[in-house]
Amino acid sequence: MTLKFDGSAYHGWQRQENAVTVQQRVEEAVDSVFHEGASVCGCSRTDAGVHALMFCCNFHTGKTIPISRIPAALNACLPPDIAVFDARDCAPQLHARYSCSEKEYCYRILNTPYRDPFWLNKAYHYPYPLDAAFLNGQAADLLGRHDFSAFCAAGSAVQNKVRTISDVSVTREGEMVVFRIRGDGFLYHMVRIAVGTLLYIAQNKRNAGDIPLILASRDRERAGFTAPPQGLYLTQVFYRSEVPTDEPD
Amino acid sequence: MTLKFDGSAYHGWQRQENAVTVQQRVEEAVDSVFHEGASVCGCSRTDAGVHALMFCCNFHTGKTIPISRIPAALNACLPPDIAVFDARDCAPQLHARYSCSEKEYCYRILNTPYRDPFWLNKAYHYPYPLDAAFLNGQAADLLGRHDFSAFCAAGSAVQNKVRTISDVSVTREGEMVVFRIRGDGFLYHMVRIAVGTLLYIAQNKRNAGDIPLILASRDRERAGFTAPPQGLYLTQVFYRSEVPTDEPD
Repeated sequence: MTLKFDGSAYHGWQRQENAVTVQQRVEEAVDSVFHEGASVCGCSRTDAGVHALMFCCNFHTGKTIPISRIPAALNACLPPDIAVFDARDCAPQLHARYSCSEKEYCYRILNTPYRDPFWLNKAYHYPYPLDAAFLNGQAADLLGRHDFSAFCAAGSAVQNKVRTISDVSVTREGEMVVFRIRGDGFLYHMVRIAVGTLLYIAQNKRNAGDIPLILASRDRERAGFTAPPQGLYLTQVFYRSEVPTDEPD
Repeated sequence: MTLKFDGSAYHGWQRQENAVTVQQRVEEAVDSVFHEGASVCGCSRTDAGVHALMFCCNFHTGKTIPISRIPAALNACLPPDIAVFDARDCAPQLHARYSCSEKEYCYRILNTPYRDPFWLNKAYHYPYPLDAAFLNGQAADLLGRHDFSAFCAAGSAVQNKVRTISDVSVTREGEMVVFRIRGDGFLYHMVRIAVGTLLYIAQNKRNAGDIPLILASRDRERAGFTAPPQGLYLTQVFYRSEVPTDEPD
């Protein structure tokens, strides 16, 4: 299934003991429709307050509800800040997280003198001038295969911090400066630290051209701050073609 | 002053006894900054749940706070769903409502199979096919000077229901169908009834070409339903050039 969600009210995707998460709400909706106590597997953990324009998840069922009716049936059971917009039959071995080959995130920076009620909790408001073309050049140093230890928050249990970034850009779209990044995997807070590092470069708290040095250092202290969650959106999820996926009926 | 506001949480602009309104919040903020018990005059009443991308209002003060500091000072006192983005000195005879020559509204119809969490309370979700070019042709019959009694909700105390529409259009912007209308004045629910009438034509509940007949009838029953408030935005406010307005300093 493919979802959109406004993450403002949730402590991320993954179920937690004492906080409401998107996974919990989706599993409750699936259980309301399928009555099987379903466990729903998501393509990614997301942090509290992070949004998704495309989030993929899967579950297994023995029921025969026509797949074309599933989005409407689940939307009727979901809160208004979560919506299913596609559902399809997949190969049983597909795993929303482990079969995923790449993901794309975007980070929205609202670059206006004053805050905007229509972007409340949906963008990071940065009121000082930003040169998107300059930042685009700086961000290009993230491209390729690197050890991203310097861009990983403390507390991550991941051992291998090598990831491959296949596309990255910073563009201006009117009042919004948009950072986009696509890669085969992302460490804890990696996108938000990348954005914070670019903003530090914009503020001369780091030098232009520092990103290769920061990567080589593998030292979190060398990178910039962790940009706040409300600007971050999961925007695309890509799957390996070798996983046979049925077309929707 | 020029404001933006997300009207979802408010019972419109105008102060009311038992409901929170935008005017109340703005007057409270002005009083926090100016300590004069200011009365703030708005360009328009707006209905509960209606938004503004541009809303003009004015007040009189004897204080000498530099005008360039007023937006930031007020934004610090306003809730996050209301923001001031411009303030300027105006001629003392300017009246935000009566000096206004024209206003432009837009109405956003989210035309997707399923609801979208990012347009919750910010657009009207209409899941059936819509032909924007066809509706644009139908809407053109609203252009010009007409008695809009058929497009005025019951309960309006206004006597003269003649208004002049100088521009109207329906366009598709991706998944959104956007109705825009500019005129010298709008009756109670007039824009929402115009949108509801176009949707009735789309649904064959009214005939193509009916708008001139509906206008001529002056009968509210002949027009369509009142489209819900969350799709409606005040987008531009125009003032007569004969009111001398100082440039911002």
